[in-house]
Amino acid sequence: MSKTSLTRRKFLAAGGAGALGAGFAATPAIASGAREWKMVTSWPKGAPGVGVTAQRLADRITLMSGGKLTVKLYAAGELVPALEVFGAVGGGTAELGHTASFFWQGKAKASVFFTTVPFGLTSLEHMAWINQGGGQELWDKLYQPFDIKPFMAGNSGMQMGGWFKREIKSLDDLRGIKIRSAGLGGDLYEKLGATAVLLPPGEIYPGLQSGLVDAVEFLGPWSDRAFGFYKAAPYYYWPSFNKPNGTAECLVNRQAYDSLDDDLKAVVANACQAENAVGLTEAEWENARALADLVANKKVEVREFPADLISKAKELTPALIDGFVAGDAMAEEILKSYRAALDLSQSWSRVGREAYFAARDR
Amino acid sequence: MSKTSLTRRKFLAAGGAGALGAGFAATPAIASGAREWKMVTSWPKGAPGVGVTAQRLADRITLMSGGKLTVKLYAAGELVPALEVFGAVGGGTAELGHTASFFWQGKAKASVFFTTVPFGLTSLEHMAWINQGGGQELWDKLYQPFDIKPFMAGNSGMQMGGWFKREIKSLDDLRGIKIRSAGLGGDLYEKLGATAVLLPPGEIYPGLQSGLVDAVEFLGPWSDRAFGFYKAAPYYYWPSFNKPNGTAECLVNRQAYDSLDDDLKAVVANACQAENAVGLTEAEWENARALADLVANKKVEVREFPADLISKAKELTPALIDGFVAGDAMAEEILKSYRAALDLSQSWSRVGREAYFAARDR
Repeated sequence: MSKTSLTRRKFLAAGGAGALGAGFAATPAIASGAREWKMVTSWPKGAPGVGVTAQRLADRITLMSGGKLTVKLYAAGELVPALEVFGAVGGGTAELGHTASFFWQGKAKASVFFTTVPFGLTSLEHMAWINQGGGQELWDKLYQPFDIKPFMAGNSGMQMGGWFKREIKSLDDLRGIKIRSAGLGGDLYEKLGATAVLLPPGEIYPGLQSGLVDAVEFLGPWSDRAFGFYKAAPYYYWPSFNKPNGTAECLVNRQAYDSLDDDLKAVVANACQAENAVGLTEAEWENARALADLVANKKVEVREFPADLISKAKELTPALIDGFVAGDAMAEEILKSYRAALDLSQSWSRVGREAYFAARDR
Repeated sequence: MSKTSLTRRKFLAAGGAGALGAGFAATPAIASGAREWKMVTSWPKGAPGVGVTAQRLADRITLMSGGKLTVKLYAAGELVPALEVFGAVGGGTAELGHTASFFWQGKAKASVFFTTVPFGLTSLEHMAWINQGGGQELWDKLYQPFDIKPFMAGNSGMQMGGWFKREIKSLDDLRGIKIRSAGLGGDLYEKLGATAVLLPPGEIYPGLQSGLVDAVEFLGPWSDRAFGFYKAAPYYYWPSFNKPNGTAECLVNRQAYDSLDDDLKAVVANACQAENAVGLTEAEWENARALADLVANKKVEVREFPADLISKAKELTPALIDGFVAGDAMAEEILKSYRAALDLSQSWSRVGREAYFAARDR
């Protein structure tokens, strides 16, 4: 195993150890009443999807504020490492962060519910839970001890199931396979008989080539194509029972946020809401285009997961999640709210969106 | 037939005759550099969904601008009638309007493609077409001759099929039925053998009671419950093959928009994008809650449309739309773009969202 590859548990612990001691320093005024804020991110410079979204978010705030609040973006590693964004914002090294909540489960276990959950809410349903179903209040409460105010600020949308070197004809074919996976999705693969390995994005393709892993579950066609996974693993499986959503978050240092006048508070909140929606539609559009290209020009074999695999995964998920939250009162409270939102959304989707898709595909 | 009820064609013609002659007057400055804009709407004061969205949109702009641009909202009829919003904004009577594009097909036929289309794009797919697929550029081009810049600014989401007094067990049961419906959806009901009648919202419930109509296709459970349709027509059908989306639009007088500095242009655009997303998630959340309530507490019979009705409706739709655009070059150009977006989105939904719903419902 490569020295830089990590088991999931170690990777999360490393993220968890990233808290910075630096206190929040007053923002320097660059003109009368003007501020300059730093936004640290977990993404490589200009990364398709998340990197572009982070830059647009910074630009929206800068432009709308009319020069009163200028945001400068830092790619992963430029100011702090990718997995120290949470600590850097809470500690005041940067006023803003753009990242994903499931990186922080070593600090606050329940953070995993604010990115994506196996067999959980789709993007629109997740956004409705945050906006209308009490999700935002719980998220605020979860991050409050870390001096952070979170906003949804981007979304990678519906994912794919993953890339496999060999065809998966039944659940048995998963046994013993080493798959790159993350979070609760990785835990679920372990329950299904595979071995989950968390590799940072840059190491996945080499890992597939070298045989370090036999499969990879990452994002959707847009992002996956850019990483070239199809060159080493030709079978691309659907549906993504593991990651039906992909919320990105904007973290704001609480003291920095509270120091803003109401107009600039609204500028930050609206910029996040606007980019959350536009980032999502961009991901959906580009995923659709990339999938068509992968099939037409890259000889990718697009396959449906076998029924016994999906059934077993669905059967195992509730107990897996119950076990994950057990003993953490905050995680138990958030799971309760999440499940209520899921019940409600699922009932409506059955006769709404889901039934419509079936009619349209007739 | 009630004197105020109208056939669809007359209703649209009335909307089409609403252009106002008033030229655009310079906005009065209420303080140094401060402006006050009027927003006229097609909605009753505080109407669930659209009315709330319009008020929040006005408030977002006012708050973010820090007093530089204050927006005052006018309900339908307060300044101009509901169906004169387009002419009022283009003519400069108001700088902003909040309405829905399918009201304006008497002026610009292709406007119908920017609200919802039978067997067309779902909300997320529609937003992706507008944001990334060239839809915004075509919409701008369509409204340019009317001196209007359009933005998406709210969404009533996935709809239901409609309320019927009697059970619909096959396509035959639709023959001769008088149904309240609108736009291309109404045309489709006519092709299916029903008679489409366009009644303004306030006249639908009395019309159902009096027997003027036997059925009503309006919006989703949230809005439909408020109008009390369930008291006169107990069968509530799904899926909504007619209206899989419900985009609301913010119209901006072109000269007024061009007169803004870049920061305020961005404030208006971001406010629309933010409210577009939040309005949509609110509709989805409240529709889910209202449907559960209608079933549990209002004794509503929720039924699936018979298969032969859905199949026939799908079969008839392409020719219906081709006939609608025929001879209108702009409408033909927009339909071509819309259909390309639909093909792309449908391919991705099949292995993405749609397949995921099936796995989750297993």
